[in-house]
Amino acid sequence: MKKTRIGLIRVLTTNDPEVLGLHGNIIMDLFPELEVITHCIPGQPQGVFDQTTEKQAWPKVVALAQEMATDGLKAIVVSCAADPGVRQAREVLDIPVIGAGSAAAHVALSLDTSIAALGITDNIPEAMADVLGPALVASAKPAGVETTIDLMAPNGKKATLEQAEKLKEKGAKILVLACTGMSTIGIAQDICEELNIRVVDPVVASGFLAWYVAREL
Amino acid sequence: MKKTRIGLIRVLTTNDPEVLGLHGNIIMDLFPELEVITHCIPGQPQGVFDQTTEKQAWPKVVALAQEMATDGLKAIVVSCAADPGVRQAREVLDIPVIGAGSAAAHVALSLDTSIAALGITDNIPEAMADVLGPALVASAKPAGVETTIDLMAPNGKKATLEQAEKLKEKGAKILVLACTGMSTIGIAQDICEELNIRVVDPVVASGFLAWYVAREL
Repeated sequence: MKKTRIGLIRVLTTNDPEVLGLHGNIIMDLFPELEVITHCIPGQPQGVFDQTTEKQAWPKVVALAQEMATDGLKAIVVSCAADPGVRQAREVLDIPVIGAGSAAAHVALSLDTSIAALGITDNIPEAMADVLGPALVASAKPAGVETTIDLMAPNGKKATLEQAEKLKEKGAKILVLACTGMSTIGIAQDICEELNIRVVDPVVASGFLAWYVAREL
Repeated sequence: MKKTRIGLIRVLTTNDPEVLGLHGNIIMDLFPELEVITHCIPGQPQGVFDQTTEKQAWPKVVALAQEMATDGLKAIVVSCAADPGVRQAREVLDIPVIGAGSAAAHVALSLDTSIAALGITDNIPEAMADVLGPALVASAKPAGVETTIDLMAPNGKKATLEQAEKLKEKGAKILVLACTGMSTIGIAQDICEELNIRVVDPVVASGFLAWYVAREL
């Protein structure tokens, strides 16, 4: 099978090839037609978790996207729910640039307009809030979680599940995850199984859109 | 292969099984994992092409969706760019209801925020305009086309291509089709090949989202 090459940008700086490749592997497992080439931006070992780290990240994302695009990619995924640099990268690139945050929000809204969001910040990223608009019925973050690293701590999954349950009680029909660190810990499936609510995962959603581009639908 | 059954509602009333099955066949060709069960609403041989016909259609869509949902379907697609009855059907059904118009708009917005829309009405359907918001840079309809039936006339394809070219000149990066009658005549591929612009087809987009639901992504 001839695979279609897409790029993926991590905003969590890491030298560990296993950590680096986690999001690309999620996408390749679900969409075997894709080959995902992953790179991370420099200097952000805690990733993007507030406005300051988002501002630090976006020019680095654009620069990396420009560099990666010379490698014959069909699309580039920015694997962060805040979509850092997505708008700006679209201005300079000819291939589609898919932001995990906006992709997840759009997939959720295609299925319903009663959405709750679970992130790692007090307010969900602007890139998602802007898309969700009045469809966002509630949002929350797990207790004790401030960065994507905290999600990987022993208590991260439990705290996330507890908060998801509270969001479900507020009546949303779909729960969208507002941090790709939640994709890293694979929490979507746990929430779906335990709480019986549809969960949209941002890494999966961005891979789904990249697959749309690759298939030339 | 065990197929996942989804429903599709046509808002063009027809007794011709070939015409009836056109949109379902487009989806099944692209997504062989899906089996599409199609029904049409009664009494609208010219389909939905303005506010009056939209108002006539939506309660019939909801009633048909309720009836079809008893048949063990995983999702229902309303195959009309105006999304008639989508919001209302979601209120009474437990399975996802996907509107071709909003699905196409969301898929387009996941890839870029500079969108043009080509429909059959002076203004594109509200269901799409609401989603596209300021991302909609221009919209138009082919000369001499008023209903989905006109699109199938000998001159329909040519008039559509001419208007698509004018829209491309206005600088949009993506062209979204704002009438599923354009899916019927398969114009997306022609536009894409002749004008080298990415085209989002509403029937394809809704099938794409139904496939997302079927795969339980």
